[in-house]
Amino acid sequence: MSTMRTAPDQAVQPIPAFHVYDTTLRDGSQQEGLTLSVADKLAVARLLDELGVTYIEGGWPGAIPRDTEFFARAAGELTLSTARLAAFGATRKAGVAVAEDAQVAALVDSGAPTITLVAKSDLRHVLGALRTTGEENLAMVRDTVGHLVGLGREVFVDAEHFFDGFLDDAEYTTSMVVAAYKAGAEVVVLCDTNGGMLPHQITEIIEDLRGRLAAAGQAEARLGVHTHNDSGCAVANALTSVRSGITHIQGCVNGYGERTGNADLLTLVADLQLKMGMELIPEDVFAETTRIAHAIGEIVNMPVTPRAPYVGASAFAHKAGLHASAIRVNPDLYQHIDPREIGNDMRMIISDMAGRASIELKGRELGFDLAGDPDLLSRLATTVKQREAVGYSYEAADASFELLLLDQLDQAPSYVQVESWRATSQQGRDGILETEATVKLVDANHGEGERKVAIAEGNGPVNALDLALRAALRERFPMVDEFELQDFKVRILDSHHGTDATTRVLVRTAGRGLEFQTVGVGPNIIEATWEAVFDAYMYGLYKSGI
Amino acid sequence: MSTMRTAPDQAVQPIPAFHVYDTTLRDGSQQEGLTLSVADKLAVARLLDELGVTYIEGGWPGAIPRDTEFFARAAGELTLSTARLAAFGATRKAGVAVAEDAQVAALVDSGAPTITLVAKSDLRHVLGALRTTGEENLAMVRDTVGHLVGLGREVFVDAEHFFDGFLDDAEYTTSMVVAAYKAGAEVVVLCDTNGGMLPHQITEIIEDLRGRLAAAGQAEARLGVHTHNDSGCAVANALTSVRSGITHIQGCVNGYGERTGNADLLTLVADLQLKMGMELIPEDVFAETTRIAHAIGEIVNMPVTPRAPYVGASAFAHKAGLHASAIRVNPDLYQHIDPREIGNDMRMIISDMAGRASIELKGRELGFDLAGDPDLLSRLATTVKQREAVGYSYEAADASFELLLLDQLDQAPSYVQVESWRATSQQGRDGILETEATVKLVDANHGEGERKVAIAEGNGPVNALDLALRAALRERFPMVDEFELQDFKVRILDSHHGTDATTRVLVRTAGRGLEFQTVGVGPNIIEATWEAVFDAYMYGLYKSGI
Repeated sequence: MSTMRTAPDQAVQPIPAFHVYDTTLRDGSQQEGLTLSVADKLAVARLLDELGVTYIEGGWPGAIPRDTEFFARAAGELTLSTARLAAFGATRKAGVAVAEDAQVAALVDSGAPTITLVAKSDLRHVLGALRTTGEENLAMVRDTVGHLVGLGREVFVDAEHFFDGFLDDAEYTTSMVVAAYKAGAEVVVLCDTNGGMLPHQITEIIEDLRGRLAAAGQAEARLGVHTHNDSGCAVANALTSVRSGITHIQGCVNGYGERTGNADLLTLVADLQLKMGMELIPEDVFAETTRIAHAIGEIVNMPVTPRAPYVGASAFAHKAGLHASAIRVNPDLYQHIDPREIGNDMRMIISDMAGRASIELKGRELGFDLAGDPDLLSRLATTVKQREAVGYSYEAADASFELLLLDQLDQAPSYVQVESWRATSQQGRDGILETEATVKLVDANHGEGERKVAIAEGNGPVNALDLALRAALRERFPMVDEFELQDFKVRILDSHHGTDATTRVLVRTAGRGLEFQTVGVGPNIIEATWEAVFDAYMYGLYKSGI
Repeated sequence: MSTMRTAPDQAVQPIPAFHVYDTTLRDGSQQEGLTLSVADKLAVARLLDELGVTYIEGGWPGAIPRDTEFFARAAGELTLSTARLAAFGATRKAGVAVAEDAQVAALVDSGAPTITLVAKSDLRHVLGALRTTGEENLAMVRDTVGHLVGLGREVFVDAEHFFDGFLDDAEYTTSMVVAAYKAGAEVVVLCDTNGGMLPHQITEIIEDLRGRLAAAGQAEARLGVHTHNDSGCAVANALTSVRSGITHIQGCVNGYGERTGNADLLTLVADLQLKMGMELIPEDVFAETTRIAHAIGEIVNMPVTPRAPYVGASAFAHKAGLHASAIRVNPDLYQHIDPREIGNDMRMIISDMAGRASIELKGRELGFDLAGDPDLLSRLATTVKQREAVGYSYEAADASFELLLLDQLDQAPSYVQVESWRATSQQGRDGILETEATVKLVDANHGEGERKVAIAEGNGPVNALDLALRAALRERFPMVDEFELQDFKVRILDSHHGTDATTRVLVRTAGRGLEFQTVGVGPNIIEATWEAVFDAYMYGLYKSGI
């Protein structure tokens, strides 16, 4: 581990006028179900830098071993083009000299040019959780900020529980903010740690604080804000802060975070950039936002909520038949922004509410002009409705919808017939688990005699069936090996039926420059998977021009 | 279908001072992936009434066959104690006399005491989508409102695209609002249909509109608001409207709705009730909110997002070790409200970030006092970390965590040993799918000789294994039949590995007054399910005092 105690060059660069401060790697990782490895953190940091955030808070070196390792590896492996790396940590312990505090030393050792110190600003927490006096808490802030500034670091202070504290004892809370500035902090960040504030309270408190800071000779003090979504207002609370002169906003990609999450940083940036006239991110980079949001969702294994503003899969998806017919006329009247600005797309949803207008638009997306064939449109709409009623969903599975469309046009690909398949999983007396699958196909174009029989072992029945099917197809269609099943989602429908439930499987396949999704449904999860996987290979072959 | 053309008695009751207007059954059902049967709609309406919303918008009779049926069945099957039923529909068609308009007639035929008419208020939509003149659009509003009021109905008007329209042509948009009031509308609802507004815009526009309405002699006009979350501000936009004097708020349970969803009605009500001093719902009913939110999530098969404010499973869940130790001292300092007010609970999350303090608290929740055994706490923390690293998750699976804890205490139940199991799915030449499973158990307390072998068919391998295991246990433990596997969730971990991915299965089991979750993990989905199902039976037997 590096023990560099002088500040890196970056720290002497001028501080930007407005900070987009990302805390996905620190506060975001408090989210239930989210666990980040060091490699995950490095990968996310690269994407955040690509997006052009001002600061990336990497974690708490010295307190969490993985975070200590992250900063050590970042020093050698992470080259940032625009973002600066910040380490998060606490002020010195009560009653301990700052130079003797191991946690503070670990922050310095991390080599991060910026250090964000969390400090108590709510006297009740000082007394109840820290179990020290208000005065000692102020000394802890002064000493730690002064110490780090003296070592050439840029220091931010997160005023924990600021808003609750201010409502309880504005004088004490203000004195902590003043102490931080006097000791040399660049920014004091007002934290709504419990997330319960409403926008009008935020506005009133910041205004009150400004008056108190001016009276204390800190009229020019630079303020930041850190909000959570417990009242459903995380983004609005940050926006109203910016209107009150805040120039440093904290948040997490995809709104990750403890409890209800932190402010969604991407929504916040998009609102500021597209609706409040701030130029935070260059236009061409901004158009990468959707891709980066989803890439981070993949890395942290917590996919972007379809309903997420701006970047969600549903954010510009239209389902209502009423809208579909008007959208053909003028899409701009039905969208709050042009989705391409943020790298997203308008999308028509094929569902059982879809009328013929929606299906016509969807056909157009896929390159079929169906406008001249009202009978076909009606048949397709009916088929979609029937199949969705038993559990299929074409909302995501474009490839399965296209196969359905081809079938109605009598152009469905027919390369092979399935004679039979079987998948067995067993665990014997030795405790060893074995899975094998058999697939028997008949070549559709070469008569009954041309059978292909393949068997494969796998680490599960789905994997074994995939491998056996691929093996059975390989000789005649060698390009099957160029396709990879990249994603595999299982949704239990009517899950209140327990293990007797209907299962829907979505498979995402990539290869030969294509990426597509297929769907399978059945009470048997293996059968549903077989359908989705088989369709994926057939669609891949069809799109390869076979 | 009823063709009653006189208004029901309810319509003459005095209109409440503030409306909580739920549109889950209409606008909420525009959400991608959400499809409601008539039975679903009736069940949701009963829960909304139980919660005490003022209005339930049931759908669009005459335009959507299911909605026509809903109103017909509601007349006979739905007894509401506090809520009123509203039917949604459009103004008459351009160039058609209102008395001749079939869609308007269907609204009347629905029998709903309240009718909410959607009308264009943005001149660009009038010209581009309706393809009529501004003046004809105003006539359509006047005629339809007047017609329905004349039939004794309470009429609300949703001014579609109001905010966008106002920014484009405030004069025209205002003239539409005035026309609606003059014709007898009780409320005009300002709709942010595209969802792109920010709170400060909402405030400014409402203030501007108020001035214009006063100038037109409509100073006392009653306004409503309908917001969407495309800018991440749906709740804040509604809250700021209420501060501007709006007395009718629209939204959907769990924030369902097209694109990014409508304003989450429950968050909105909780903010107004707990933070803005409005008494909308009696305290004891309010404490049912969490239960009702989840019940509706089950019915519509779109579970409550764990991160949902107030009612989400994570909304009061604490993961950070830092917080866990302070929470032992005083939970109120770490929560924006007491979760019991809304029927939710504080919860400690057992994850690989959990320190000993979290595990001690979790043990206390389960009835184990672990405070006196620091070694055990350390061992448990280490085991949890190791198992979570390979894919287990104890965040939801309390029963599996308790089995782990019992194991560390050498008190783990040991009723049977698994000798072997096997599950086979196959589809033959006849296209018929067959699934069977074999389970062989050895009685743990009766020596090698006591074997139980059972075979079962099922509609899938999971179902077949469940039935075979149950059959093998039944003779010695007849109470297994009292347990039911109620829910079955599959999560593909590392899903970018395709069909070769690791699978985590969560099973929820109920019976004998218990409800609990168990977890299983493995590359083989069948193996993971077997583990979760086996643990579920063992836990059920253990809790039954065996």
